[in-house]
Amino acid sequence: MTQSDSASPRTADTARPIGLQIIPVPGLPEIRPGDDLARLIIDACLQSCGLHDHDVLVVSQKVVSKAEDRLVPVDPGDPLAHKPLVERESARILRRRGDLIISETRHGFVCANAGIDRSNVAPDVAALLPEDSDRSARRIRDAVAGRHGVNVGVIVADTFGRPWRRGLTDIALGCAGLKPILDLRGTPDAGGRQLHVTEVCLVDELAAAAELVRGKATGIAVAVIRGGGPEWFGPGSVAEQVIRHPGEDLFR
Amino acid sequence: MTQSDSASPRTADTARPIGLQIIPVPGLPEIRPGDDLARLIIDACLQSCGLHDHDVLVVSQKVVSKAEDRLVPVDPGDPLAHKPLVERESARILRRRGDLIISETRHGFVCANAGIDRSNVAPDVAALLPEDSDRSARRIRDAVAGRHGVNVGVIVADTFGRPWRRGLTDIALGCAGLKPILDLRGTPDAGGRQLHVTEVCLVDELAAAAELVRGKATGIAVAVIRGGGPEWFGPGSVAEQVIRHPGEDLFR
Repeated sequence: MTQSDSASPRTADTARPIGLQIIPVPGLPEIRPGDDLARLIIDACLQSCGLHDHDVLVVSQKVVSKAEDRLVPVDPGDPLAHKPLVERESARILRRRGDLIISETRHGFVCANAGIDRSNVAPDVAALLPEDSDRSARRIRDAVAGRHGVNVGVIVADTFGRPWRRGLTDIALGCAGLKPILDLRGTPDAGGRQLHVTEVCLVDELAAAAELVRGKATGIAVAVIRGGGPEWFGPGSVAEQVIRHPGEDLFR
Repeated sequence: MTQSDSASPRTADTARPIGLQIIPVPGLPEIRPGDDLARLIIDACLQSCGLHDHDVLVVSQKVVSKAEDRLVPVDPGDPLAHKPLVERESARILRRRGDLIISETRHGFVCANAGIDRSNVAPDVAALLPEDSDRSARRIRDAVAGRHGVNVGVIVADTFGRPWRRGLTDIALGCAGLKPILDLRGTPDAGGRQLHVTEVCLVDELAAAAELVRGKATGIAVAVIRGGGPEWFGPGSVAEQVIRHPGEDLFR
């Protein structure tokens, strides 16, 4: 099985790889409160894939929350010990079913349990979301630019559920150096017609792509996406450009 | 500007690419009803990146709908001429605002305008969603396996909005040869704790990743994602495994 599955893969032609690369970045140590996360991420990148202009670094929310000491003590014996925190971190509860709470966080994210979770942290703490994930992303971007003169985009990503479809996908909590939404309104489509509304959420698609190599149980907290077009890059904020105002939302 | 932006990109280290590749596949002709879409996709892949075992082919819904003749005549002068079709293709209307209708389609998808749109088709037709996108994906997968002996996964992807966040992302309408949801329940996380619920929607993350190279206005209808793990592959269906039953949905 090993032989036929991996040793000599069947191929109908010769590969000529182009497009994007999604590169997992190993080598990040266990992050502790106060760690210089930007430096540790830069070091891990330099030791594996390097850092290029127009790379996008996608960083797990969990390591950001650890470095920023967004950890709150909880009773390790009580699997529901973080529930009072969920209420505290929520601006508004949207739905409850059993232990599950879907709420709008103080930042405006709609997600389960106000984004608080206890996986990949010590048993006696729960991790809250970063206070300002755009700022967290900006710190990493600025460190890469300041120390290495390289212009990258940065995303802080987390894993959210969504209505109507099973399974979770990674989305962007914050970003820096990237246009969160690519506005294709008015761009002619391939047939020359005007596309009247096509606004693609670039940063959520990048977060989802990065999750494919980060996985949940592998300890890989950073991925680099290489090969993006210059139109992806520029100033931008998830808080200001991606979070939908309650007034324009049909499902709140 | 051209020189500093692209001719000699700054780099903080040498690249050593690993991970996934997301490869746009050019060369697909304009698709007409009755075309052998699988053959045309295979030809386009063989002329660009080849086809390898465990490649994932992500195919735009639009070309599938064209090949399957899911095109309905509409008055080219009336930008709202497809609206009666939206009502017809909807099992249930969830929300209305102005011209926008969010409905549940007969397949169970919740999306704007029942997935019907008029971009990238002739001005006098509107494209409906495929009748059974899992079946459409399976036909392509079976053709690749039957003609070339290569075991690939196939996704039929479309661009959907979502509540709470601005911008659209690509999702999987159908799949073949892929496990739509990777069930990590019970897998220990990096700290050795049990992850009690982490079900990742692999096929939606793959669809989103592919959109990054397909774009909306480039005429690139197919992307290949190369480098996925063997755990991604196996039998699966979006209709059966991703669409959430209304009874377990908190937002319907």
